[in-house]
Amino acid sequence: MQPDVHAAAESIRSDQQDIYAVIDLGSNSFHMLMVKVVGGSVQVIGRVKRKVRLAAGLNDNLVLSRRAMKRGWECLALFAERLQDIPPQNVRIVGTATLRLARNVKTFLHDAEHILGHPIRVISGDEEARIIYQGVAHTSSCEQNRLVIDIGGASTEIIVGQGVQPLKLSSLHMGCVTFLDAYFADAQLSEENFAAAIAAAEQVLAPVADEFNALGWQVAVGASGTVQAMQEILIAQGMDETITLPRLEGIMQQAVICGRQDQLSIIGLAQERKQVFPSGLAVLIALFRSLHIKGMTLSGGALREGVLYSMLPQLQGTDVRQHTINSLMVRYHIDQQHASRVSDMALSLANQVASRWMLTGFDGLSLLHGAALLHELGLLIEYKNHHHHGGYIISHSDLPGFTRAQQQLLMALVHNHRADINRELIAKQTMTSVLLTVRLTRILRLAVVLSMRRRHEALPNVSVSGKGEQLILQLPAGWLDQHPLMRAELEQEVQYQQAAGWELELR
Amino acid sequence: MQPDVHAAAESIRSDQQDIYAVIDLGSNSFHMLMVKVVGGSVQVIGRVKRKVRLAAGLNDNLVLSRRAMKRGWECLALFAERLQDIPPQNVRIVGTATLRLARNVKTFLHDAEHILGHPIRVISGDEEARIIYQGVAHTSSCEQNRLVIDIGGASTEIIVGQGVQPLKLSSLHMGCVTFLDAYFADAQLSEENFAAAIAAAEQVLAPVADEFNALGWQVAVGASGTVQAMQEILIAQGMDETITLPRLEGIMQQAVICGRQDQLSIIGLAQERKQVFPSGLAVLIALFRSLHIKGMTLSGGALREGVLYSMLPQLQGTDVRQHTINSLMVRYHIDQQHASRVSDMALSLANQVASRWMLTGFDGLSLLHGAALLHELGLLIEYKNHHHHGGYIISHSDLPGFTRAQQQLLMALVHNHRADINRELIAKQTMTSVLLTVRLTRILRLAVVLSMRRRHEALPNVSVSGKGEQLILQLPAGWLDQHPLMRAELEQEVQYQQAAGWELELR
Repeated sequence: MQPDVHAAAESIRSDQQDIYAVIDLGSNSFHMLMVKVVGGSVQVIGRVKRKVRLAAGLNDNLVLSRRAMKRGWECLALFAERLQDIPPQNVRIVGTATLRLARNVKTFLHDAEHILGHPIRVISGDEEARIIYQGVAHTSSCEQNRLVIDIGGASTEIIVGQGVQPLKLSSLHMGCVTFLDAYFADAQLSEENFAAAIAAAEQVLAPVADEFNALGWQVAVGASGTVQAMQEILIAQGMDETITLPRLEGIMQQAVICGRQDQLSIIGLAQERKQVFPSGLAVLIALFRSLHIKGMTLSGGALREGVLYSMLPQLQGTDVRQHTINSLMVRYHIDQQHASRVSDMALSLANQVASRWMLTGFDGLSLLHGAALLHELGLLIEYKNHHHHGGYIISHSDLPGFTRAQQQLLMALVHNHRADINRELIAKQTMTSVLLTVRLTRILRLAVVLSMRRRHEALPNVSVSGKGEQLILQLPAGWLDQHPLMRAELEQEVQYQQAAGWELELR
Repeated sequence: MQPDVHAAAESIRSDQQDIYAVIDLGSNSFHMLMVKVVGGSVQVIGRVKRKVRLAAGLNDNLVLSRRAMKRGWECLALFAERLQDIPPQNVRIVGTATLRLARNVKTFLHDAEHILGHPIRVISGDEEARIIYQGVAHTSSCEQNRLVIDIGGASTEIIVGQGVQPLKLSSLHMGCVTFLDAYFADAQLSEENFAAAIAAAEQVLAPVADEFNALGWQVAVGASGTVQAMQEILIAQGMDETITLPRLEGIMQQAVICGRQDQLSIIGLAQERKQVFPSGLAVLIALFRSLHIKGMTLSGGALREGVLYSMLPQLQGTDVRQHTINSLMVRYHIDQQHASRVSDMALSLANQVASRWMLTGFDGLSLLHGAALLHELGLLIEYKNHHHHGGYIISHSDLPGFTRAQQQLLMALVHNHRADINRELIAKQTMTSVLLTVRLTRILRLAVVLSMRRRHEALPNVSVSGKGEQLILQLPAGWLDQHPLMRAELEQEVQYQQAAGWELELR
């Protein structure tokens, strides 16, 4: 059973030096994440996950059963096989709530460390909260106070912070595995069970809720499977990505109608998420009620990402979005001078119509900036449909700093930056109204055409005006006659926009 | 009208230094192609094309009309606007048949060169043939004798060569624009018009056909809009990519049924290709008959690419396919050591079943090699579905050295290198049988799993055997017990293959 861990460490070749691994021995699942660094950001090259459900093996006396330990060790033997190929200094292994609580943790750790050939750090609740916050801060964008919650198998972490700095943190003894056993042991999805679980969670929250509420926050993000499951359900059921209390209560009603755990079937709920779904939902509802959360989105990272970024100080930028965009530009060999040129032009056009088009202070402007910087992503694949390829890349990439809805808007803009306009993509994004998305799209398209010579000196002096949705593009007298190619391209653009029902005039 | 060409050349910034432009003043269209070099190969960043139909302005006395010249100059003014931003030494402009023939070519060139601010080289027919051959040789893969034909607006080039060396070349006075005027002036798609056009083309071919036929060739490729149009029709009508005489005659019958040029409607024939379609088809049929061509595929490049590669000696590798694969590995930041490891493992497995599975000498093995080297292309986008992303990238890229059908097979292999198997992609590729594609897919999948530790030292000693389509994977005694992760992955792979109806056993 014992893999050849110890002998191999010496022989790890140089091409493995830039591979990093983080293992998270959670109360519900054990995870191994392997990454390498490409173009200044993290590229996942492997994941292994096993639902060990360690917390289920912890009895009331906080003794971890031999059976649960064995499930854990078997999983670690899998991890060990990959781990031996990674430089020891690039490996971090952390254990959380169940291992914190288990009185006989030493027995588990003794064999576990032997199997892995690496030390395991069992972190305190506060430390877990601090690392989760770092993981969120390095994968989500926020300049204001931010509430982060993470519902684990046996603990729930709550943090309020600003930038990369946590201001207050707390780790509570409740989780989706322990609450499942405590309140849904009869597998009934009854209103009574939900009410009991929610009440219990509210009680756990009571001692800390006031302090968090007093601190306040502008943005709330969730970083766990429960939050992800809720978001998937909302989107599958045609809503936008924002989780709200009424929506959670609606989902709870759908669960109650199913009656029993084995009958649970909700549109958008994946099979693998069903098991700890009711308990996670109850804890989340309690969090929304106790902390008066208005709306929550899903964070891109949490504990594993926090541990990972602690090993990679060079990747710790303060502006997550800009870091993501810069890395994409490097990875996809984008002409960065041209990207900036188009972005400057787009923002200059946007400024000229900002008050009429209600763009002032609109968050979409930073997405217009991002889309302009990324509009040539797809050129790496092929020229003719590079706008489609760019859209494909954006819609399928992990984009730290952007929520799913923001990603959809970026995708709609990049896909529509030239040639035929796909109105469906504009309608499908849920980040903002169709009208504002159309406005951003039109501005980006004009900026791209006007910058087509790829030289700063060749940019025309241009002004935009008009009424309502009309755009009048005014160029210097005689300029169009002296620039027949640009004229042809702009006239073509007038055709495209008019075909989409958007009034555009050249002067 | 005169753009500010001459003053600007000095101020071209350093970021423009790696941009190259080729302009081709053809008898049917004028083209401008702009590229830059990324990851050791060419990336198109712009194209401008105008159907100038210069040849239509050449009268029987070989005088080019003022009107045709004016159409040309207007187009060149568009080109000039972009050209001024590109370093002069990175620009090449060539003129072909119509400019060769026109007695008053000097009048045209005088103004044309003034507009462009660059010299124009009117090349001889032989030179054109030689450059076309270079363009084909640098974008198509072939180790045997190769016939290349290119049907232009007013001339048709025929070359037989080997590797990058033309052995015999010829440029003939017939083209899709001149033959349109000569044989389809009444716009009737009659059998009589086709017969007259074909007979005339055969007469033009008669003096050279014997010499080409005596030289012989193993592979025939076509490099023009006519050949591309035919291939698009075949594929749209459910055939494979290979153009044959019976298929061309079938297409001619479809055209005859349409009756008149303005009624022309054939499944797969694009609107923009209709105009010179009947004349191009007649010339192509004459070529097939006179040169006894059995089958022809479309070349990736021709004149413009030949001119371009003459400016970029560093890109002139002899093995076009390997160059394409190497460049993709660089562009997409692929771990090349791992790619080679998987490829070696795949070829080693393939060798073990080569005689039973009829893989010996099978061209598909080199595509298996290519797919193995490229299987991680999509990791740049995202891990979870990187096999899908890799398939997307391959199916949308220009892949010099691979025909369309070969590209489809590569795509099917990369898409199916892990996780669920998409049988539709395997059935849709037309490069080889479904059975052989399944065999290659299975070998690649096993090679990927067996190499998953990304280290040479960690590869198991493995042998494959079995009967018929069955595969038995034999690992050293006790090996699976010592490698629980690999065992889990291999057992998962058995599930995947069995779900697809492919018998796989571990021992």
